[in-house]
Amino acid sequence: MFVDLAFPEHEYATRIARLRARMQQRGIDLLLVTNASNIAYLTGYIGESSYVPQLLVVALDADPVMFMREMDVGGCWHTSWLPRNSVFGYPEHLVGDPEGDPYAWIFERVRDRTGARTGAELGEMTSGTAAKFAWQRIEKSELEIQRIREACDIADKAMQRAYECIRPGVRECEAAAEIQAALIRGTPAYGGHGAFAPYMPAASRSGTAHLTWTDHPYQAGTHVNLEIGASRYAYAGAIMRTVSLGAPNDRLRRLHAATMEAHAAAREQLKPGALCEDIATAFSKVVRQHGFEKRSRCGYPIGIHWLEPTASLRVGDRTALRPNMTFHLMLGMWVEPEFGLVYSETVRINETGFESLCNTPFRLEIVE
Amino acid sequence: MFVDLAFPEHEYATRIARLRARMQQRGIDLLLVTNASNIAYLTGYIGESSYVPQLLVVALDADPVMFMREMDVGGCWHTSWLPRNSVFGYPEHLVGDPEGDPYAWIFERVRDRTGARTGAELGEMTSGTAAKFAWQRIEKSELEIQRIREACDIADKAMQRAYECIRPGVRECEAAAEIQAALIRGTPAYGGHGAFAPYMPAASRSGTAHLTWTDHPYQAGTHVNLEIGASRYAYAGAIMRTVSLGAPNDRLRRLHAATMEAHAAAREQLKPGALCEDIATAFSKVVRQHGFEKRSRCGYPIGIHWLEPTASLRVGDRTALRPNMTFHLMLGMWVEPEFGLVYSETVRINETGFESLCNTPFRLEIVE
Repeated sequence: MFVDLAFPEHEYATRIARLRARMQQRGIDLLLVTNASNIAYLTGYIGESSYVPQLLVVALDADPVMFMREMDVGGCWHTSWLPRNSVFGYPEHLVGDPEGDPYAWIFERVRDRTGARTGAELGEMTSGTAAKFAWQRIEKSELEIQRIREACDIADKAMQRAYECIRPGVRECEAAAEIQAALIRGTPAYGGHGAFAPYMPAASRSGTAHLTWTDHPYQAGTHVNLEIGASRYAYAGAIMRTVSLGAPNDRLRRLHAATMEAHAAAREQLKPGALCEDIATAFSKVVRQHGFEKRSRCGYPIGIHWLEPTASLRVGDRTALRPNMTFHLMLGMWVEPEFGLVYSETVRINETGFESLCNTPFRLEIVE
Repeated sequence: MFVDLAFPEHEYATRIARLRARMQQRGIDLLLVTNASNIAYLTGYIGESSYVPQLLVVALDADPVMFMREMDVGGCWHTSWLPRNSVFGYPEHLVGDPEGDPYAWIFERVRDRTGARTGAELGEMTSGTAAKFAWQRIEKSELEIQRIREACDIADKAMQRAYECIRPGVRECEAAAEIQAALIRGTPAYGGHGAFAPYMPAASRSGTAHLTWTDHPYQAGTHVNLEIGASRYAYAGAIMRTVSLGAPNDRLRRLHAATMEAHAAAREQLKPGALCEDIATAFSKVVRQHGFEKRSRCGYPIGIHWLEPTASLRVGDRTALRPNMTFHLMLGMWVEPEFGLVYSETVRINETGFESLCNTPFRLEIVE
């Protein structure tokens, strides 16, 4: 059997070792992991099964074991480093049965394997405790950065494809099909995995962020806000740009100029030792000088399955930047419910400052 | 502003009226809806914002109101029938802040709007209670069936594209790009919305269901299990077929023949008054005669965001079929962790039996 792992096994061994060290610091013998991104981080498994109960058990003194729907056990064998006899499938009849309780089945086996002592501690695990462990993902290894770099490379190519396809009269779904295909096809050296659906609200939808596309044609004199992300073994590389269909009006031009100037100010703060809020403060100061306001945060850590729910580039977040953190510097400016633009890059903090992982030029793209 | 609604407003008014009737039967004055599919069902809203708190409040004696992240309010205006002054955005600073609690903000406003009497009942709402209301979605209106029919039409076209693209030596990601593009591009009359990533495990991965694709080339003498779904305003139409790269071996041929024969037996049970378990029993009986076993269920209701979490086509589910229920008759046979095939159709129960909404021929597709 061919196991298609994102990384060599030693990468996962290092992660488990670091996790166990953190568990020990906190006096935890047994960690129950249900979050799909955390499971991918620790095992490599990237099958789509988090819509039903699943559980990875990491103990201090025993090998990790995975519990999942029987039907998905093979998927775990094929995409994780876990040995076959460490993956347990609960019976299929527990799925789709309102009376069925897969967790009861799972917990019985967790107790059997780990003994009463750890079993008694299960009740102390809160979701708050579990969330703290997500912080381990914020600093990336060189291997992880390579995956994000590959994803950014694919995202750049997909953005280029968007610039080629978006034209007045073209249906939004036609452009979306080409962008999504570019994200999946990838490069001759490596393909895209999974499929983050591009957000691409157009015209009066440009004031909002999280809409995909319609099947209506683009109109000259409007603009499109593209949020594109590629996936490499579930690692995301993201980029946002605005495309103007014809010459931009004065307001869009002014907002874009303000955003670019503020972007430059934010970039000056991207270095080890700076605080997350420093980036947001630097950005906001400049856009305010131009009469605009950014209400949403300026970005977040990016990694497995895109957004990592830990630090935020927002006022009040005093997390210090450290080398090999990766962020989506997300400078979308939704200034009114029906008017806004987007602009972003994926960056890696390095020893002296940062490195941009995207290569798409920083400009308002104009197509005719 | 152009609102791109899946249906005319009266469709949503009917749904809300039916929901209120059910609420009244159960003595519920105020229903709190957090599930993205239920929110789409009641309002039309299909933005991707369920990763942060959001809440639709349906009261017996007041118009529905929606609470969501401020940044997504515009998306709700653009894709739902809700009037602008019924959509409330909580401040962006509550997002990505571990101390921020959007629900506290939301509940304060719910209490302000609804008064103490209903406020006092909030504590009685359990997720179990809420789940019961998902059953309302199981019978579809003619308008909904039209959307699912369109989605099935697109899914058929995407399956045809898969048959054209999957060849020995082609990288899996190349085929995936073409399939996904076909799902999004749709037809000249209507495009696909959103993007369900196709599952398409190949070779030894054929024993498992929920893997997407790799960037490795297809090998002659293996087979690919395709699970393809198109989206029309988030309504899914799904279809599964197996493609053999070269002449199928004897075992695959026998399993496919058994599945097809069992499929015919299952179809005979697809009629009003039959029970969900009847379909599973009929299917299982035939595959067992051929020495095979289906451990997973035989299907589930299909609608908004694909799977509806209510009835199951499984032994023990005594839900009676009624006209205008729609199911994904999902006959995947994963008989070993590294060997299986897939086969399905999307069907609508009608007055006398059923109607298949897919047109792809029922056969094992062979490509060279």
